[in-house]
Amino acid sequence: MAETDGITVENKQIIFKGYIEGAPKETDMELKLGNKIKLVAPKGSGAFLVKNLYLSCDPYMRGRMRDFHGSYIPPFTPGSVIEGFGVSKVVDSDNPNFKPGDIISGFTGWEEYSLIHETPQLRKVHPDNMPLSYYIGLLGMPGFTAYVGFYEVCAPKKNEYVFVSAASGAVGQLVGQLAKLHGCYVVGSAGSSQKVDILKNKLGFDDAFNYKEEPDLDAALKRYFPQGIDIYFENVGGAMLEAVLLNMRVHGRIAVCGMVSQHGTSDPQGIRNMFSLISKRVRMEGFLQSDYLHLFPRFVEDVTSFYKQGKITYLEDMNEGLESGPAAFAGLFSGKNVGKQVICVARE
Amino acid sequence: MAETDGITVENKQIIFKGYIEGAPKETDMELKLGNKIKLVAPKGSGAFLVKNLYLSCDPYMRGRMRDFHGSYIPPFTPGSVIEGFGVSKVVDSDNPNFKPGDIISGFTGWEEYSLIHETPQLRKVHPDNMPLSYYIGLLGMPGFTAYVGFYEVCAPKKNEYVFVSAASGAVGQLVGQLAKLHGCYVVGSAGSSQKVDILKNKLGFDDAFNYKEEPDLDAALKRYFPQGIDIYFENVGGAMLEAVLLNMRVHGRIAVCGMVSQHGTSDPQGIRNMFSLISKRVRMEGFLQSDYLHLFPRFVEDVTSFYKQGKITYLEDMNEGLESGPAAFAGLFSGKNVGKQVICVARE
Repeated sequence: MAETDGITVENKQIIFKGYIEGAPKETDMELKLGNKIKLVAPKGSGAFLVKNLYLSCDPYMRGRMRDFHGSYIPPFTPGSVIEGFGVSKVVDSDNPNFKPGDIISGFTGWEEYSLIHETPQLRKVHPDNMPLSYYIGLLGMPGFTAYVGFYEVCAPKKNEYVFVSAASGAVGQLVGQLAKLHGCYVVGSAGSSQKVDILKNKLGFDDAFNYKEEPDLDAALKRYFPQGIDIYFENVGGAMLEAVLLNMRVHGRIAVCGMVSQHGTSDPQGIRNMFSLISKRVRMEGFLQSDYLHLFPRFVEDVTSFYKQGKITYLEDMNEGLESGPAAFAGLFSGKNVGKQVICVARE
Repeated sequence: MAETDGITVENKQIIFKGYIEGAPKETDMELKLGNKIKLVAPKGSGAFLVKNLYLSCDPYMRGRMRDFHGSYIPPFTPGSVIEGFGVSKVVDSDNPNFKPGDIISGFTGWEEYSLIHETPQLRKVHPDNMPLSYYIGLLGMPGFTAYVGFYEVCAPKKNEYVFVSAASGAVGQLVGQLAKLHGCYVVGSAGSSQKVDILKNKLGFDDAFNYKEEPDLDAALKRYFPQGIDIYFENVGGAMLEAVLLNMRVHGRIAVCGMVSQHGTSDPQGIRNMFSLISKRVRMEGFLQSDYLHLFPRFVEDVTSFYKQGKITYLEDMNEGLESGPAAFAGLFSGKNVGKQVICVARE
C-alpha cells in the first residue's frame, strides 16, 4: 500500500498518567479515545505499521512506572502510550524483512495500531498450530525467562530439590514443569488455594502451598523441604527470599528473576540472612532473558515440542478488549490473575 | 619416644569464657595457668602431640563465639581452649605420616602444646625458605581464600575494575596483589590513613580510601570507579555491600567471603539494593576455601613463586606470647591490626 493510500482510522490507546509509588492501580492508566492513525509505514523509516492482537501484562512493567533511571530499561513517559510485549499483525511495512500479513511478537504500544521499529527482541512468528497469544507467554519473554533461568542460571541436576515462588504465574508455571521434566522434586508457592490446586493437579508440581496461610515461612519451607532447597527460582523477594536463605542446601543456586527488582533504591527493609550465602556456599545470580537471545531458537523448538507431546501445559488469564488492560495489569500485583495475564485486543 | 617416657610440662592455655553478642572483647577469653600435659601421643590414638609456634587470629572465629549452630563450623565450647589455625612442631606422633620434628599447619589449640588429629586441612609444611608464620597467612587459609576467591569465584578478566574491602587484611592484601598481577585495576578500602598509605605505596593498589572518612560510600565508589565495578571481593558486608550493589557493572561478580557471615540470624538490618543483582545481572557467590582443597598444591606453588620473584609481599602484625592472644584477636574487630594478625607462641 503506498503512503498516500493509507486509510486513517481511530486508534484507542491506554495512556500512562504519571509516576507512581507502591503497586500500580487501575487509575494510574487511562483509556484515550479520539486519536487517529494513518495505516501506513512512512517511506524511508524502516518501520512497520501493525495491528495489535494480544498484549502482555508483566510484573517488570511496574519498574517503568517509577521515575527511576538506574534499571536496565527506562521509565515510561507520563502522558504516553504504555509499552509492552505484544503479538501484532503487520498492516504496512517499510522494512524488507516484514510484509503485510506477517505476525510478529515484540515491543509494541497498548493501542489498537502501532508504528514500530525492528529491535533485537522483535520476532516473526510462525504459528505452527500454537495459539497466537502464546508468543507473549509460553513462547515469549516469560517462557524464555523460565527456560534460560532454569537451565542456564540454576544449572539443575536430576533429583535436586527445586522451589518456585509465584509458581502459577507466567514464568513460574513453566519453571516448575521444566524442573519436573528434568527429574527434580518441585514445590511451588502461590497466593490462593485455587492456585495451589492448579499447581498440584494441573501443572504436576510435587507439592504446593499458599504462602498467605503460612505465618512462618521458614517453618513452612522446613516442612516442604526437610532436606533443604538446591534451587530457588526467585520471583518475589522480601520475606520469602529471607526464609529461603535459611533453607538452602550446600552449593545451592538462587536465580533472581523477579520482583526484588521492584523494590528500588528506596527499599527500607533489605534482605536478611545473607550469611547463608557463605555458610551454604550459595550462588545467587540475577539475570535477564535478553542476555541469552542466542538460545531463543532452541527454546522455541524445545518448548513447542514439549507442548505438542503433551509434556507441558500453559495457563493463560485472558481479558477481552484493550479497555480491560489497566485492571488486568493492576490485578497482577494483588495476585488476581491465574496464569499468564494477557489482553486480547483483536483476534486477527 | 615411648608413651611411658613422656615428660609432663606446664601448658598455658587461652580459654573461651562464654557465648557473646556483638564484637569479641579481650575479656571474653582468659589465660589459664597450671594445666599440665604429658608430651606423648597415646598409642592407638593416631594422634600427635605438637608444640604450637604461631597461632592465627581470623575474623571467622567470631562466629564460633556465638551460640549459633546453623553455620559451616560449630561454636566453641565455653570453658574450653580456643581453637584456630596454627603452625606447630610435632613432638610425638602415633601417626605414621608425621614424625617428631615435622612442621605442620592446621587446626590446633590456643595453648603451648596440643594433642591433635589428622584432618583434611592439616598439612605438613616444607618451609622452603619462607617464614614459618606465613603458613597461617600468605600460604595458609587466608592466602588460599584470596586465591580461590579471586581466581575461581570472581573469574577475573584483564582490565576489569576490582574493589576489595578490608584490603590490608590477611585476605584482602593478597586479593589486591593477585588482581594487579592479572592486569586488573584495583582499589581497596581500609579504616585508617596508615592502611591506605600501605595499600597504595607498599601493596601496589592503584588507589585506596579510608571508608571512615567517607560519609557517603556510594559517592566514594562513584569517585573511585566512575566506570563501575566488575569484581567486588566482599569482606565486610553491611553499608559497604549496599553501596557496592549500586555501582556494579553489567555481569559483575561479588565473591562473598567476609563478615557478612557474622551477622547471623538476628541481623536486624538486611541488605538493601539487591535489585541491582537483576538490573546489572550480577552473580553473588558465597564460598569457603575448604571446598577447593584440590587446588591447594597449585596455590602453594603459584604464591611461593610470586613471592620469591618479588611480585607480591605480605604484611603481618605479629604479637609476642600466647598471653597476647585475646587482645590481638579482639583488635581485629576494631581494625587495630595492620596486616595479617599472628600470635607467636614460640619460634621453634
